[in-house]
Amino acid sequence: MDDRIDLWNELAAQLGVDSIRSTTEAGSGHPTSSLSAAHLVAVLFADHLRTDLDDPRSPANDRFLLSKGHAAPVLYAALKAVGAIDDATMMTLRRFGSPIQGHPAPVPELPWVEAATGSLGQGPAIGLGMALAMRMDDSPARVWVMLGDSESAEGSVWEAFEAASYHGLANLACVLDLNRLGQRGPTMHERDADAFLLRAHDYGWQALAIDGHDVAAIDAAYREAAEQDRPTLIVARTVKGHGVSEVADQEGWHGKAMPKDLAERAIEELGGVRSITITPPKPEPWLPPTAPPPAGASAPTFEDDVATRKAFGATLAWLAGERADLVVLDGEVGNSTHTEDVEKAAPEHFVQMYIAEQALIGAATGLQALGKTAFAATFGAFLTRAFDQVRMASIGRADLRLCGSHAGVSIGEDGPSQMALEDLAMFRAINGSTVLYPSDPYATARLVAAMADLPGISYLRTTREATPSLYGPDEDFPIGGSKTLRDGDDVTIVAAGITVHEALRGADRLAADGVSARVLDCYSVKPIDAAALRAAASDTPLLVVVEDHRIEGGLGDAVLDALASSGATAARVRKLAVTEMPGSGSPEELRAWAGIDADAIVRAATSAT
Amino acid sequence: MDDRIDLWNELAAQLGVDSIRSTTEAGSGHPTSSLSAAHLVAVLFADHLRTDLDDPRSPANDRFLLSKGHAAPVLYAALKAVGAIDDATMMTLRRFGSPIQGHPAPVPELPWVEAATGSLGQGPAIGLGMALAMRMDDSPARVWVMLGDSESAEGSVWEAFEAASYHGLANLACVLDLNRLGQRGPTMHERDADAFLLRAHDYGWQALAIDGHDVAAIDAAYREAAEQDRPTLIVARTVKGHGVSEVADQEGWHGKAMPKDLAERAIEELGGVRSITITPPKPEPWLPPTAPPPAGASAPTFEDDVATRKAFGATLAWLAGERADLVVLDGEVGNSTHTEDVEKAAPEHFVQMYIAEQALIGAATGLQALGKTAFAATFGAFLTRAFDQVRMASIGRADLRLCGSHAGVSIGEDGPSQMALEDLAMFRAINGSTVLYPSDPYATARLVAAMADLPGISYLRTTREATPSLYGPDEDFPIGGSKTLRDGDDVTIVAAGITVHEALRGADRLAADGVSARVLDCYSVKPIDAAALRAAASDTPLLVVVEDHRIEGGLGDAVLDALASSGATAARVRKLAVTEMPGSGSPEELRAWAGIDADAIVRAATSAT
Repeated sequence: MDDRIDLWNELAAQLGVDSIRSTTEAGSGHPTSSLSAAHLVAVLFADHLRTDLDDPRSPANDRFLLSKGHAAPVLYAALKAVGAIDDATMMTLRRFGSPIQGHPAPVPELPWVEAATGSLGQGPAIGLGMALAMRMDDSPARVWVMLGDSESAEGSVWEAFEAASYHGLANLACVLDLNRLGQRGPTMHERDADAFLLRAHDYGWQALAIDGHDVAAIDAAYREAAEQDRPTLIVARTVKGHGVSEVADQEGWHGKAMPKDLAERAIEELGGVRSITITPPKPEPWLPPTAPPPAGASAPTFEDDVATRKAFGATLAWLAGERADLVVLDGEVGNSTHTEDVEKAAPEHFVQMYIAEQALIGAATGLQALGKTAFAATFGAFLTRAFDQVRMASIGRADLRLCGSHAGVSIGEDGPSQMALEDLAMFRAINGSTVLYPSDPYATARLVAAMADLPGISYLRTTREATPSLYGPDEDFPIGGSKTLRDGDDVTIVAAGITVHEALRGADRLAADGVSARVLDCYSVKPIDAAALRAAASDTPLLVVVEDHRIEGGLGDAVLDALASSGATAARVRKLAVTEMPGSGSPEELRAWAGIDADAIVRAATSAT
Repeated sequence: MDDRIDLWNELAAQLGVDSIRSTTEAGSGHPTSSLSAAHLVAVLFADHLRTDLDDPRSPANDRFLLSKGHAAPVLYAALKAVGAIDDATMMTLRRFGSPIQGHPAPVPELPWVEAATGSLGQGPAIGLGMALAMRMDDSPARVWVMLGDSESAEGSVWEAFEAASYHGLANLACVLDLNRLGQRGPTMHERDADAFLLRAHDYGWQALAIDGHDVAAIDAAYREAAEQDRPTLIVARTVKGHGVSEVADQEGWHGKAMPKDLAERAIEELGGVRSITITPPKPEPWLPPTAPPPAGASAPTFEDDVATRKAFGATLAWLAGERADLVVLDGEVGNSTHTEDVEKAAPEHFVQMYIAEQALIGAATGLQALGKTAFAATFGAFLTRAFDQVRMASIGRADLRLCGSHAGVSIGEDGPSQMALEDLAMFRAINGSTVLYPSDPYATARLVAAMADLPGISYLRTTREATPSLYGPDEDFPIGGSKTLRDGDDVTIVAAGITVHEALRGADRLAADGVSARVLDCYSVKPIDAAALRAAASDTPLLVVVEDHRIEGGLGDAVLDALASSGATAARVRKLAVTEMPGSGSPEELRAWAGIDADAIVRAATSAT
């Protein structure tokens, strides 16, 4: 045991030294936040984090999530100590082009990093998603999440604690680095470990406090955590900048790299540079469970007038029979979004996250990191609650398949708090995203099925009310495509989702007035069918773009962007969208009020000619 | 006392009856969620919520926030009972054009509703902001927030509980309507009141549980809450659909209006229609504190090369001396955003919210409802954590003055988790918002001062690095304006913030090559200077729009939108923006990589001619 203690202490010193070396070399970074965590990370990587380094993505591996992502240097130092990266690579911290980024991001060179962190408070939800996946796969693996104390002011942390307890995730442990100092000064609770112990306990977790620099105590706590029947919080009393007397426990050192002279003294005080390599413990033997064979059922078909949200649910329920890896998450609105279809048909594929959208997205992110095909759905309006989690998931190169229901003013009487009016803008702005807005059940079914294999963040918008089918079961809907539902030369009406139906009504009325209107269903908002739009701009003198969404950032902006890129400026573009604050009303009244119904389309189409 | 008990019970029955009447008339709504709250609301409005109905916005009035906003019918029924609205008005629930919306929204006809609710879990933070304002004004008023149990899965609730306790807000009480049933089925905790009591206690609140339909117990609990030295949580055990045996405590009735026949039986069971009017208790006498006179100091001036984030902080500190009603909120990054200048110069104007952006925005929303001029700042990237709160604040007609620092890839080595890349898209899409992105300290100072009086949601984006001053202290920056920093006829470079400096460098190099470039500083991204853009599109054959932001939804889309609205399509528009996922690096390296630096501008300007 003494040998292990010596090793852990030496390794901790090395992690500290390496955190100083890399940040001083970079000229920026968070060495003091790394030093407070050094012993905790050392013991974990040396003796607890069971990993097959040659198979970093194996579901049998334990996972470590550095929720306090700014302590990235200590993570990179640990990866070096286990031989995953070499010293020269570690020393490229924060350099342009280096995989060793300022905050951990999953890049190809770092398969041991599976989620991006750096926006605080997000680790626990991602961790719980990973833990769920491990349990689904009967994996003996565990998830370890390191939290900061200042970070734990984020409600998202406790939202995830609630969910982890509810789901009985005994394979999840959080280690809270209680170093007393936040960015500008002391935290709310400073050294009061009880504040966190009591709460964790109230949330149904096992909770214990230790000296975060006593490696024997750390090891004992980790062993205890692994034996619990519930998730465990270990509150570790630490010192920010531990081991470096000139900065230890002092304000003003958050996020500051040490100047060279101080760095030299600090390294000397820590005992100098080491070159310890450790062999992490191996994972337990594990075989993936036998996946049930696909049911081989046909994709759903629809009677006329089915809401796209219902088609979404039906398609997911079908997919659950075809794909063993499918997981569908709900935020207590499954009867509205129709994920309840999965809950009924295939409950083992369904996870209830209750009214907690941040945890909903975080858990989906964790599940997909462990190989699940994760769909999550709630009201489109409520996905704004998790914009930061979506943003971080995109940095994390995650594959998320998200659905926002209750699009636009068309939801009617519930009023604006429940209306998704900014969601197309939100998701268009996400790097590499796919944004889809089907207008009928068959388009929905095809696109939902396609989403199951799309990389990155994909988002599908569904409508509350029932709408007629415009397409049939054999129609293809390529990502980046569109459908020309009517041909015409006098004007093009570009629409998506609910406004496609208004567009068709408008086109019929225009036809009766001798105006031939082309109708484009741009079900793929991003990537958008630039070729079809260019052709329309070339063939018709006016494009009327109509969307049940704010005028900023949505379909209209996507159309303008596509035309500008092509240099096609001959046609005029008129945008119809929501420009004022709605109230309650029927869908028809509200669409008329917003100027996005058939009447408005006819007016827009004819007043310009 | 018995008289009061009879009154409360009768009033509760009336509130229930009226909730049924209005929702059945509307054909939609949440009567069962209203019935569970009826006794709680009755006792509160009859004997505890001190209000001068003729002066609804008086800071001396107690405030009631219905965080479980879908129970709006019971709130409207209470407003009718106190005579604020009449029955006919109440019965227009959910109708198009009615102020009696599906979820409460502050509209001119309803001055007693000061915040929008309906996206769950947001009431406590808004309530804590109101409570802070009351304390700042030495008002004896109190804030009462009604929460749902399912709603309390939202981490934002506990984030606010933490903050309320930290700030010692004894004038804040939350009443949790523990009716066991969520939208699709039972909540996580069902009837386990202890789950909430323990947590509230460990968050530092007083906490007690009562029978939520025992009016004497409710009254006693409210009196107890008013005497505490800390915030109070009252967990009220209730029955969803209480009093209507056909629906009480039954699943499947969330968000369903009763059909007429059932409504009639329900009303009869509740004892029939009443017409009780109550006189709410009067507020305690109060006089606003004497506001200190403005210091009369001059606006700050700046040496060359000052970061706009520093100018932001300096301007706020100056404003704090001029405006007694100014409140500045920080999310534990005040040394980065420079709100710390206010903390140092005028600590009584400063509120620390720690790492809790949802509570940051919620508290600002509550403060402004009570007449404060509230500024809140954090990293622009972290404002995505509070998009739903911003969205709800806009529905709430709130005046919020928000600043997001650390814009774009230009933050450098910290990497993408800390970069604001989607914030212009997020804020452009908010109804009635103002979006500002100053390029130098003097522009910043002018715009920050202007923001202090702007209605609605205004957002200012600041830069991490120091940049030269381009303007002087006497320059005006009208909202919706722009600055032409260089005249030219061959190409127009449209930029904002950090890219203005790249644009000027690019213009210099183009000039050396004989290409005359106009440079437009579009510091006002929304509303944007469409006239200047139209003129540029008319005068020059090419517009190069360059922004340190995603290519979707930001400055480029705003420019295209302005030009499309005017029909000006002669000029080509080329957008330079961030189109891929950044890593770490220096600001210069990252701007070059993103194709938004002077070199890229020159290439874009010349390759098209």
